[in-house]
Amino acid sequence: MAETLQFKIAQERDLYDILRLIAQDQLGSKRETLTNPPSKAYSDAFQNMQSQKNNNFIIASQNGKIIGCYQFTLIYGISRGGAPRAQIESVRVDQNLRGSGIGRKLMLDAIDRAKKSDCQLVQLTTDKTRDDAHLFYDNLGFTASHIGYKKKI
Amino acid sequence: MAETLQFKIAQERDLYDILRLIAQDQLGSKRETLTNPPSKAYSDAFQNMQSQKNNNFIIASQNGKIIGCYQFTLIYGISRGGAPRAQIESVRVDQNLRGSGIGRKLMLDAIDRAKKSDCQLVQLTTDKTRDDAHLFYDNLGFTASHIGYKKKI
Repeated sequence: MAETLQFKIAQERDLYDILRLIAQDQLGSKRETLTNPPSKAYSDAFQNMQSQKNNNFIIASQNGKIIGCYQFTLIYGISRGGAPRAQIESVRVDQNLRGSGIGRKLMLDAIDRAKKSDCQLVQLTTDKTRDDAHLFYDNLGFTASHIGYKKKI
Repeated sequence: MAETLQFKIAQERDLYDILRLIAQDQLGSKRETLTNPPSKAYSDAFQNMQSQKNNNFIIASQNGKIIGCYQFTLIYGISRGGAPRAQIESVRVDQNLRGSGIGRKLMLDAIDRAKKSDCQLVQLTTDKTRDDAHLFYDNLGFTASHIGYKKKI
């Protein structure tokens, strides 16, 4: 029987599992290079994340295995009455466990974490090619109010 | 004759001007409360921004007056080969100077600042009700590849 999911802030020893989850993804598989241990670019990136306040990967474990993750960044700002916002990136669930409600549990954990950090807004963007994302975020009470622009430099 | 724009990282003494620009905006006018000095919520928010690494307002001045601003946040992450990304929020130009190309100069400054911070991606979201934003960001080489979801909590 599957254990309850355990959530915690990732440590550097979890980096391979995070990268494995990111690289399994339909878009991530084209963008990432999965090796064990991960290459220096990824370990440097993890160190850089750790040097920032309030920018972490959260990992979800079940039966001792890391099966989901998301990046949680707390961003302070002036607009909206000075409300801090939580930004979510890189939401991923193990490919063998998709469709079982784990993604929803990841997002509920993110929303709860945002509330505890006194955020008044949770935000994320999702690639337009992810056909199933719209209903998923709608069901979590998100509003598709914005257009997300990106520019590679 | 209008001087060249001067860009710099905002200090707390610039907070009223930032708030004035944010509150002038079509959406900001409904969300913000402009007082001089700004209320404690805004000064606390500014202090919180200063406590974070790489999360700043950039202000643009001309003839000694602050006439534009944007929030520039450097976010490290693991996806996309561990590439750091620059996130832009709260891009604002003084209402008396709109349509004169200052917004474009703000964004070019942001892109340049992102390059100097070794970012490989610049990202932002814009409210779907901002009809003129699409062409503006297209012309700057951005791609409207994502849907931006927000949830108030």
